[in-house]
Amino acid sequence: MNFILPIMKLLDGKITRSVLVLLLFALSTRAQIVYQDASNFPLLGKATEKTGAHYERLPDSLKNISRPPLWALSRNSAGMAIRFRSTSTKIAVKWESLSNNHMNHMTDVGVKGLDLYCLEEKGYWRFVNSARPTGKTTEVTIIANMLPKEREFMLYLPLYDGLISLSIGVDSLSSLEQPMIESPIRNKPVAFYGSSILQGGCASRPGMAHTNIISRRLNRECINLGFSGNALLDLEVAKVITEVDASVFVLDFVPNASVEQMKERMEAFYRIIRNKHSNTPIIFIEDPIFTHTLFDQVIAREVQKKNQTLNELFSALKKKGEKNIILIHSKNMLGGDGEATVDGIHFTDLGMMRYADLVCPVIQKLLRSNSK
Amino acid sequence: MNFILPIMKLLDGKITRSVLVLLLFALSTRAQIVYQDASNFPLLGKATEKTGAHYERLPDSLKNISRPPLWALSRNSAGMAIRFRSTSTKIAVKWESLSNNHMNHMTDVGVKGLDLYCLEEKGYWRFVNSARPTGKTTEVTIIANMLPKEREFMLYLPLYDGLISLSIGVDSLSSLEQPMIESPIRNKPVAFYGSSILQGGCASRPGMAHTNIISRRLNRECINLGFSGNALLDLEVAKVITEVDASVFVLDFVPNASVEQMKERMEAFYRIIRNKHSNTPIIFIEDPIFTHTLFDQVIAREVQKKNQTLNELFSALKKKGEKNIILIHSKNMLGGDGEATVDGIHFTDLGMMRYADLVCPVIQKLLRSNSK
Repeated sequence: MNFILPIMKLLDGKITRSVLVLLLFALSTRAQIVYQDASNFPLLGKATEKTGAHYERLPDSLKNISRPPLWALSRNSAGMAIRFRSTSTKIAVKWESLSNNHMNHMTDVGVKGLDLYCLEEKGYWRFVNSARPTGKTTEVTIIANMLPKEREFMLYLPLYDGLISLSIGVDSLSSLEQPMIESPIRNKPVAFYGSSILQGGCASRPGMAHTNIISRRLNRECINLGFSGNALLDLEVAKVITEVDASVFVLDFVPNASVEQMKERMEAFYRIIRNKHSNTPIIFIEDPIFTHTLFDQVIAREVQKKNQTLNELFSALKKKGEKNIILIHSKNMLGGDGEATVDGIHFTDLGMMRYADLVCPVIQKLLRSNSK
Repeated sequence: MNFILPIMKLLDGKITRSVLVLLLFALSTRAQIVYQDASNFPLLGKATEKTGAHYERLPDSLKNISRPPLWALSRNSAGMAIRFRSTSTKIAVKWESLSNNHMNHMTDVGVKGLDLYCLEEKGYWRFVNSARPTGKTTEVTIIANMLPKEREFMLYLPLYDGLISLSIGVDSLSSLEQPMIESPIRNKPVAFYGSSILQGGCASRPGMAHTNIISRRLNRECINLGFSGNALLDLEVAKVITEVDASVFVLDFVPNASVEQMKERMEAFYRIIRNKHSNTPIIFIEDPIFTHTLFDQVIAREVQKKNQTLNELFSALKKKGEKNIILIHSKNMLGGDGEATVDGIHFTDLGMMRYADLVCPVIQKLLRSNSK
């Protein structure tokens, strides 16, 4: 029932924009919103398909094996996105979150909301608007009053909650179909492992988690295996990571793993990945110089010790002849102004962008030399 | 009872940092937190002292005159900050918020929390950490484990809630005193009038509201008269604005005021200020090009019409011979990437910084030519 588009084409250049807008309203006010289950569309950002539920991140086989907090966090849909195509003048969503989580240093939109991006002609993904949660279940129009034309969309999923159900709504006079363009590219994604920050704490909305920013910048799928407070180098997670046919692996666990845990398990964790992916670049990232380390001497010493440990372990790997390993220093990660966190630790959108500025060029360079 | 500082001075250069840190813990673990009412210290960011309660923004005389939503918002402590000085190794706060507000597109820290900055030797205000609210009343340590030395602090107050009470806590072995340095400078503040965005929506924490960023960059007190959804050119607010002996007035009402309201009241609003401040620069700011205007045709037309109206009214003032009026265009306000808002409208910290990047140099130039 998509008759707006042909009318548009027919009238192209013959009527003014104002008339078009009027026409659009006349039509769209008569249109009903019809919903389709989002699971009908491609879901990006999963390391494995062996999950119990659609929007989970670890395989069901780990349910009784992984530590309970790690398992619970694996049910958050961090870093996932739905791809679809529509000619609708409005896009709506309804969803039920798993736990109706709330945190006092992150917006509900970031925790359990969604946000929508649209692919522009030049291949740039542009933010459309966000879906602000009103409770455990929400039904909301993300954007309305668009000119009816075919667009490619990406809908980012909650960072700090899971999804029991999700539907995408468009007006009944329009199409809602599979994407036509493969963007971001799904072949050879970048797989990230990390802490609360990597899981998206504390982006203002899901699309601003740095793995999502990086995915848009690289035009490549990214897999987010961030587990708040729980990037403790659990070896079963390394095994999950190996399931990703990645172009690059990024290991950003230092904010969580202790010096002892790194000494005990970092090399084992690395070897599990390396044994299955003999030539794939593996990036290690230092602990951010948290902005309050200028004041809190205990945190400052801890960061310094952890980064020293990482550097020592990295050098040891190098000395053993390990190739295609890269260490990213955190000196310039958060900029020089001290403003990029909400609580000294967790990145605001400003911090997320600065992290992407630091890490993206390193990955890009690796991808370019891979493709030579 | 401040004996840490003399010990530090005595030992200066003779003991290692590690020993100092140990000493610090030994002392600080024995220290109790003692609180003083924050109202004992300078409160920055008020347009008038004639308020009914300490942390309110409009004079009590308007209680039964102003529209109820405007009056309610005037009880939010947006843009206010407490200045103090302390040698404490930790800073704590306890406070009771007025309404225990919550919004789904802003963090609780931004809505009803606080954040602390410290003056560095070179005069730069550096973020220390935030006080994350846990309910209507909260008691929390903002920062701990600092080396004991005298520091100047600035504590920003909630953006979207009021305060019934606020106390500052330091360890009992340290000082808590009036500031010694006047920073930001309080003479000739910059007075801002505006909408939800200006009130600080949706900064991640109070210090990231753009009037607070601008105040730090200018090293000058800023007055925040932002009223979410209610910058409707109410003339009694113009009268309050005239009470500020400002260096510059910034009028940023277009996000709220309709075309009709602007045509009806903008010049009257302006005249009230101009009649009392014949030579003070008055800046008008265009509506932001909200990021979803690329998609939502209705919002796009509205922004375009409002900005056209502002430009016409501004030109009319110019033609009438009005001097020292400046119009800031919004074309580059939010950058080109579309990423600076949480919901198309309200600025994240990224948007707040970009707004400051646009507006600060204009104010700075005016301040420089004022001082010639």
